[in-house]
Amino acid sequence: MHTIARALVVSAVGALLVAAAPSPTADLRGYSTDAAKVERDWEMKFRAIPAPDSLREYMRRLSARPHHVGSAYDKDNAAWILAKFKGFGLDARIETFDVLFPTPKERVVELVAPTKFVAKLQEPPVPGDATSGQQAEQLPTYNAYSIDGDVTAPLVYVNYGVPADYERLERIGVSVKGAIVIARYFGSWRGIKPKVAAEHGAVGCIIYSDPRDDGYAQGEVYPQGPWRPKDGVQRGSVMDMPLYPGDPLTPGIGATKDAKRLPVSEAPTITKIPVLPISYGDAQPLLAALRGRVAPAEWRGALGITYRVGPGPARVHLRVKSDWGLKTLYDVIARIPGAVAPDEWVVRGNHHDAWVNGAEDPISGLVPLLEEARAYGQLLKQGWKPRRTIIYAAWDGEEPALLGSTEWVEAHADELAAKAVAYLNSDTNNRGYLNVGGSHSLENFINDVARDIEDPETKLTVWKRAQLRAIADATSADARQEARQRADVRIDALGSGSDFTPFLQHVGVATLNLGFGGEGGGGIYHSIYDDFKWFTTFDDTSFVYGRALAQTVGTAVMRLADAEILPYQFTGLAETVTKYAKEVEKLAKDKQDEIRERNRELDEGLFTATADPREPDVPPAREELPPFLNFAPLDNATDALTRAAERYEKALGRAQAGGGSTLAKPDAQTVNAALLRSERALTSAAGLPRRPWYRHEVYAPGFYTGYGVKTLPGVREAIEQKSWAEGDAQIGATGKALQAMADVINRAAEQLEKVAP
Amino acid sequence: MHTIARALVVSAVGALLVAAAPSPTADLRGYSTDAAKVERDWEMKFRAIPAPDSLREYMRRLSARPHHVGSAYDKDNAAWILAKFKGFGLDARIETFDVLFPTPKERVVELVAPTKFVAKLQEPPVPGDATSGQQAEQLPTYNAYSIDGDVTAPLVYVNYGVPADYERLERIGVSVKGAIVIARYFGSWRGIKPKVAAEHGAVGCIIYSDPRDDGYAQGEVYPQGPWRPKDGVQRGSVMDMPLYPGDPLTPGIGATKDAKRLPVSEAPTITKIPVLPISYGDAQPLLAALRGRVAPAEWRGALGITYRVGPGPARVHLRVKSDWGLKTLYDVIARIPGAVAPDEWVVRGNHHDAWVNGAEDPISGLVPLLEEARAYGQLLKQGWKPRRTIIYAAWDGEEPALLGSTEWVEAHADELAAKAVAYLNSDTNNRGYLNVGGSHSLENFINDVARDIEDPETKLTVWKRAQLRAIADATSADARQEARQRADVRIDALGSGSDFTPFLQHVGVATLNLGFGGEGGGGIYHSIYDDFKWFTTFDDTSFVYGRALAQTVGTAVMRLADAEILPYQFTGLAETVTKYAKEVEKLAKDKQDEIRERNRELDEGLFTATADPREPDVPPAREELPPFLNFAPLDNATDALTRAAERYEKALGRAQAGGGSTLAKPDAQTVNAALLRSERALTSAAGLPRRPWYRHEVYAPGFYTGYGVKTLPGVREAIEQKSWAEGDAQIGATGKALQAMADVINRAAEQLEKVAP
Repeated sequence: MHTIARALVVSAVGALLVAAAPSPTADLRGYSTDAAKVERDWEMKFRAIPAPDSLREYMRRLSARPHHVGSAYDKDNAAWILAKFKGFGLDARIETFDVLFPTPKERVVELVAPTKFVAKLQEPPVPGDATSGQQAEQLPTYNAYSIDGDVTAPLVYVNYGVPADYERLERIGVSVKGAIVIARYFGSWRGIKPKVAAEHGAVGCIIYSDPRDDGYAQGEVYPQGPWRPKDGVQRGSVMDMPLYPGDPLTPGIGATKDAKRLPVSEAPTITKIPVLPISYGDAQPLLAALRGRVAPAEWRGALGITYRVGPGPARVHLRVKSDWGLKTLYDVIARIPGAVAPDEWVVRGNHHDAWVNGAEDPISGLVPLLEEARAYGQLLKQGWKPRRTIIYAAWDGEEPALLGSTEWVEAHADELAAKAVAYLNSDTNNRGYLNVGGSHSLENFINDVARDIEDPETKLTVWKRAQLRAIADATSADARQEARQRADVRIDALGSGSDFTPFLQHVGVATLNLGFGGEGGGGIYHSIYDDFKWFTTFDDTSFVYGRALAQTVGTAVMRLADAEILPYQFTGLAETVTKYAKEVEKLAKDKQDEIRERNRELDEGLFTATADPREPDVPPAREELPPFLNFAPLDNATDALTRAAERYEKALGRAQAGGGSTLAKPDAQTVNAALLRSERALTSAAGLPRRPWYRHEVYAPGFYTGYGVKTLPGVREAIEQKSWAEGDAQIGATGKALQAMADVINRAAEQLEKVAP
Repeated sequence: MHTIARALVVSAVGALLVAAAPSPTADLRGYSTDAAKVERDWEMKFRAIPAPDSLREYMRRLSARPHHVGSAYDKDNAAWILAKFKGFGLDARIETFDVLFPTPKERVVELVAPTKFVAKLQEPPVPGDATSGQQAEQLPTYNAYSIDGDVTAPLVYVNYGVPADYERLERIGVSVKGAIVIARYFGSWRGIKPKVAAEHGAVGCIIYSDPRDDGYAQGEVYPQGPWRPKDGVQRGSVMDMPLYPGDPLTPGIGATKDAKRLPVSEAPTITKIPVLPISYGDAQPLLAALRGRVAPAEWRGALGITYRVGPGPARVHLRVKSDWGLKTLYDVIARIPGAVAPDEWVVRGNHHDAWVNGAEDPISGLVPLLEEARAYGQLLKQGWKPRRTIIYAAWDGEEPALLGSTEWVEAHADELAAKAVAYLNSDTNNRGYLNVGGSHSLENFINDVARDIEDPETKLTVWKRAQLRAIADATSADARQEARQRADVRIDALGSGSDFTPFLQHVGVATLNLGFGGEGGGGIYHSIYDDFKWFTTFDDTSFVYGRALAQTVGTAVMRLADAEILPYQFTGLAETVTKYAKEVEKLAKDKQDEIRERNRELDEGLFTATADPREPDVPPAREELPPFLNFAPLDNATDALTRAAERYEKALGRAQAGGGSTLAKPDAQTVNAALLRSERALTSAAGLPRRPWYRHEVYAPGFYTGYGVKTLPGVREAIEQKSWAEGDAQIGATGKALQAMADVINRAAEQLEKVAP
């Protein structure tokens, strides 16, 4: 969780206006005083229920055997979760989808010259860790959705394999055309690496875990410590998810039995070149066999070798072949019907599938969800009647491609668009600080929730601890001042990497993604060592952060479900979007300055003069100076958004003043119908350029970062890719969405003003 | 060589004044047009003489056997150099001094727990490299001026072992009291490491070469490549040279036969704890045996291990015992008497002693000096008559402690103070860019010389190439603009690390230190592998940069020796010193801000809240808020200096206008007597606090950096060390020196104004 300067908001809004507007009561946003009292009582009861011992036992059961998509234990876990939900007294069922999920049949990585070495591609069991020996059920180490292929070519080391790395290679005169690249994990989402490699002409891609990033350089390796051992491999999907996630054969529609499917050969999200992941044990002989230029200092990992770039003389043979059959997904869905507004839904989810045993990923996030459901079962028996419908989901198939959530969202898209108030996601959970990403209309709301949760280590509220972390992390006096003075700790914008993506970015449901983390750490991600033994030895061993997550998310779900007026706040959103607008405007200017400077340096002969003749660099290409873009539509829209947000804030303040009995009136509650559509307004029917599945105009995963977010993505990526005409067009599209959001907010304000003039 | 913005000078001076003042002719500063023409002819003849083949043959001879202080070949080399000088037709002699120089008798580093390992402490010969096998004559691997000692204690890894590293250790609750520390080379001059370790209570110090810094992480190791092999060790002095360099027994006076000497036990510059250097082959088992906290990310080297801090369980036994006898130094001094002003001296030097064979350090710098001398011998025969006396020196004993230069300067201090115009130093020489450090009164002068020298790789002038490098290295648009627009490329301020120190910082002789570098690189520094084979395989293999250095320094010496008016320029100095004054003022403010912020964070409980209970950090201590210092004396002095510099510049411009025949008048030349004293004015009789040997108020090696310069050292170090009262006093002392400099410059200007009103 990161922080906002209320100071900024105040200065933008003007002190007069803030002073004039009656501020909302110190109590719960969207609640009359009476309703807030009742709510707080139920929340307190709720937070007393989640128990570390339950969390531990759920984890023991769910991570007892490998449970990837298509495995027996995946289905078995789904049935067990269903039984649990039912046992808690909730209405629950399983929804199934049939999706393309390749599993490996043949895998080869071998050095064929100058010496011979065959990669092991196998994680050995660890004595004393029982589940690490379940080899018959484990998925082999591989990258799902790699195309089949068999190539032999010279090797080139490309660092993290992101676009900037290829620019660097070009400057030192190294091409990957016809080569197999070896990239290290980290620096981008893994699926970006083969995508960018293929764009540069590579014929194969190997991804390895360097010990600098999550192996022995970080600390003792498993089983002595939590970090990645020599033969540990990170599995993972390499599908082109920035294009669209979910089943590659059914973009935009649910992968039901009889859905119309693309042929596999036409699925655009499968990689263009074969890919396999390897351990640093397997990578070392390959990297050590490279010659050519010594890798730039920041490219060097922690293997005891000279990192070189190649190409060659190392030649590598890479072979991948998969079983491309359809597999069945089991989404487990529980429902608590709303007593007052059953057609307003609060949805909460966490996936249940894993790459192998997945104690940390995803079971550490799933078990708090189960405790929340158990607690709700108890509250319901005690008479709690949530105003809105609550839906709890344990998704299948997140690991391969957000399959279970995406297909469910696509299958229920119209209903969600009409009814969804919010989606609350979690995935893994560790020790430390509450990290929140999501829609900025919920930033103030989740800050208030965080003020009510106790951090198990420091006994401060998790809000206070997050704020102090933000102060400690601030890198300038201004940033520190903001962290201290802003009422709310800033939340992150969301890119991708978990099941929130279809909700937020396809349908436009206001979303929060929550989890604790920042302390401890490890290197077992997507390996056979991510298991019960590892988690209970090195991570949240007493499950107190599991309880804190259940308390946080469970409270948030209840408070959203019970509010008389949906507790969105738009001034923080407007301030944040305005900040993004300033960023893209600066980005455009920086591009101009950068290209102007580079061209000048070319004129001066700088690159030739500063090249060492024994290690010659290639001067960069001259580029045309970028035009000025017309940012007025964006500036006008953020201005309109700011005014609408202030108007709504003032209207809500009036409605909530003096006990807020106004809020209880049915008239006031009609405003919820407008509010429900607010996040939807930020989407466009056309979606983003070249990836229409992504419809949100404020948040998207980067086309070249994968999980990493791009805010105002249409505009930002056009500028980054130097597509100036598209930049101008996207400023228009983005401005339109922001203007639509302002209109929705104005409508809500107007309705509120009528009931509380 | 780094760059100034003439733009800054212009804006400070005011455009009017610049426009009104007749600018010096485009020809040579301090020369009438006629004299300049003659000078240029001689310089052109000079630059045609230095020959790569001569350089190669000198190097082959001088590096043929180990030639450290006290060795047979050191003395033999001195005799050979003497014969060369004489053979060139120069008057030359050897001056001797007797100094304390310890050589090792016993050396032990061993791990005694939890396992046993005995460090090899030996560099193996390399097949195909004949001189690497001269083991009988090689000095063993050791750190000179380590006190004798025999200690066994737990080991602690302290990164580079600089003060900031100990602050970090304190934050993680690790003390070195009673421990042996292991520090890696780099990050500071090596002598700082045992000094700071002892201040923190350590009982021994091991210094090792991590492969990240100059071993296999950088590139292929010797003999396959230029970098440090597994068993390569960096020898070197650890004397407390920031206190005073030279013979520890004769501070401030020449170590002549009958000089009064301190007893060894009272020599303050010998280390307080025993020290030995080791290779990374020897370091690996020691570091791998450490437990305790994992080292911070930036502390981790390139060994394939988890770097941990300790203390222990590794226990180490360290034993050092030396032979503490006196050894004889052989300084070879050649002299070309001045035809017009024999009592104005231009001194040029490079040392001849090495740690072992020393092809790079120092022979690559010494052989251009010999070629300069050979060329002068030829010019003299052709009738060249330098106006001033030129002194060429090949110093002995630089490696242990700048012994030969310091003792010579101390022995001739009065004469140098009366007569020295400038000292020009070199040490090693490599490929790449002309790097210049020195007195800013010579910045403009050396820039003009650099405009006349051709870079052998690019055929640009070395000035142009240095300017383009400065543009490429600039990290901001402002810095780039300065690099482009300033007439002169900035030169560095000098700290220490070579023979210029006694000239500049003890006597106050205007100094330049010159060398090419920045391309290639290697890890043979102070090892047996720094030899002819290595140099001629990996470094300036065709000796064209050796020739370029001879051309550069030789031209500078001639141009200083022949100028009618000494070619100092003070406006650049004034601008630079003003910049330093702004820096120390900002430093004082930053210290206040930093302490205020930290105290506030302590009040907030930030450190406790953000500490991981499984790896607890210790909150820093609360500190008193620093007072405001009175910087007025410094500001007034820099202002006076600026005005004096502008006045002199204007007066010189007038004198040099219209052919500058004025300069040829004896009246005008009396100004040289004043100018000669200009750098001396920047020294104080009292010297710096706690180290009176260092008298220069603008440049000194840092008390805690060693070689690294501290500008305005009295003021800067008082602020860094939070000695506020001393800070105020040092502002006064520094202001006084700058004011004295302004007075000298005003006197010179006044004299010039009289002859050219």
